[in-house]
Amino acid sequence: LRKDNTGYDLKDIFIGAEGTLGVITAAVLKLFPKPKSYQTALIGIESPKKAIELLSLAREMTGNRVVAFELIPRIGIEFTVKHLEARDPLGSAHPFYVLVEMADVPESQLTAFFNRAMADDLVQDAALAMSEAQRQELWDIREKLSESQKFEGGSIKHDVSVPVKRIPNLYERATAAVEKAMPGARVFAFGHMGDGNIHFNVSQPAGMNPDAFLSQSAHINAAVYDVVIGLGGSISAEHGIGVLKRDMLRAVKTPLELEMMRGLKKLFDPNGILNPGKLLP
Amino acid sequence: LRKDNTGYDLKDIFIGAEGTLGVITAAVLKLFPKPKSYQTALIGIESPKKAIELLSLAREMTGNRVVAFELIPRIGIEFTVKHLEARDPLGSAHPFYVLVEMADVPESQLTAFFNRAMADDLVQDAALAMSEAQRQELWDIREKLSESQKFEGGSIKHDVSVPVKRIPNLYERATAAVEKAMPGARVFAFGHMGDGNIHFNVSQPAGMNPDAFLSQSAHINAAVYDVVIGLGGSISAEHGIGVLKRDMLRAVKTPLELEMMRGLKKLFDPNGILNPGKLLP
Repeated sequence: LRKDNTGYDLKDIFIGAEGTLGVITAAVLKLFPKPKSYQTALIGIESPKKAIELLSLAREMTGNRVVAFELIPRIGIEFTVKHLEARDPLGSAHPFYVLVEMADVPESQLTAFFNRAMADDLVQDAALAMSEAQRQELWDIREKLSESQKFEGGSIKHDVSVPVKRIPNLYERATAAVEKAMPGARVFAFGHMGDGNIHFNVSQPAGMNPDAFLSQSAHINAAVYDVVIGLGGSISAEHGIGVLKRDMLRAVKTPLELEMMRGLKKLFDPNGILNPGKLLP
Repeated sequence: LRKDNTGYDLKDIFIGAEGTLGVITAAVLKLFPKPKSYQTALIGIESPKKAIELLSLAREMTGNRVVAFELIPRIGIEFTVKHLEARDPLGSAHPFYVLVEMADVPESQLTAFFNRAMADDLVQDAALAMSEAQRQELWDIREKLSESQKFEGGSIKHDVSVPVKRIPNLYERATAAVEKAMPGARVFAFGHMGDGNIHFNVSQPAGMNPDAFLSQSAHINAAVYDVVIGLGGSISAEHGIGVLKRDMLRAVKTPLELEMMRGLKKLFDPNGILNPGKLLP
């Protein structure tokens, strides 16, 4: 049912509860028609701030047909080219990149969008996929980002989100905080910009011992999460709380929120048998 | 935040709770770019079943750019033309009508959609708005439906939803049930077909005393809601439960669901001071 206003939505309480309130035994999926064509481009861009302007423009000029908008830092292109045989599709280096994909946008609209983006100084350079193979090649860069980090030693990962308009603040402040916490640490922050969801990963300083780096995780985490919390963001956009982030909930929820969450747990699982030890501190 | 996976979503519990769990003091709205153009048509159609096929086709051929899809029975056109100076935009009568609106669909796609719909025998006749004034004229018919019923005496209203594919069953079975419950009663069922949400209204038999008709509300309600429940639908798609439908919850929720809802109420409102007497039976 797409519309049902008959009391408290018990279903919504189970979603995201990580199995601590009940077991989902069936689900109905809403399907969308498959697009007939994709328009995919890798765009060199000056900054996250310009990327936000570009996202707004793309949404406005294509009637909201943007289906992916992935922000990638220069270091992401460097690592994938160096370690994973990716090809840099643009002639020169840019501080940031956006992998944008739209669906079923007519060529005239697409041309108008790029012309306007160039005129507004949002785009430094762009490679537009002219075939499915070229589209895959562009996505390949994005999909190899995580793997490429492994060749550069230890990585400390943060799956965070902030309101979309605060993404430039996140990059600026969290990068400064990380570099202060550990000089030489390399911020490798990329992700789903349209969702405000950035994988704010940090690669170790070049040449450092990986174990020594990873032993500083708590220190680096605190630097990043403090900025995220200060920006009204979430310390777990996609991945959930589980055991690893359980004790951090005290820092991001009010005592009243935690009390209500514990009350919910007791209501749905009075015997404490559902995924015990997870989620709730 | 578009993504936030940090425990139970307390916000979602408040949505639709009709003020019985707490008071919402602030809200953030997600905005979408305003479409640059609308494509709006009133289409004469044979049956709700054909309307579902037309909806699927429209979604598929326009890349999901259908923004409204309103099903209207012939009686709706008759009442609005007779009582509210609406103009019937089609030359002859049709059993049902669909008011379809799309956003930013290029003319070539629109033409292809109508050609295919005609070839598939889904469309009997259609009037496409060629100006904003014509668009308003088509919407005017839809928006006057409720008002037009007032000129025909009493109306008993039901705001129900079913899975979209079961809308033909709803029309067929609930119409039969109403006509059996009260011969001469005139089913006046219209609404947001794309959401599976039909305002299954019933106008009194012509010439009957309105009070005599309305005194049979419980009887007519039972006829409609039995069908809706049998189809896995909702007895309140948009309007909520409040006091009027409070005692019906026992028929549509399991005892366990009601127990959990009462537990939620007690957890969030231990003193029972929030909108007392509403929603929960």
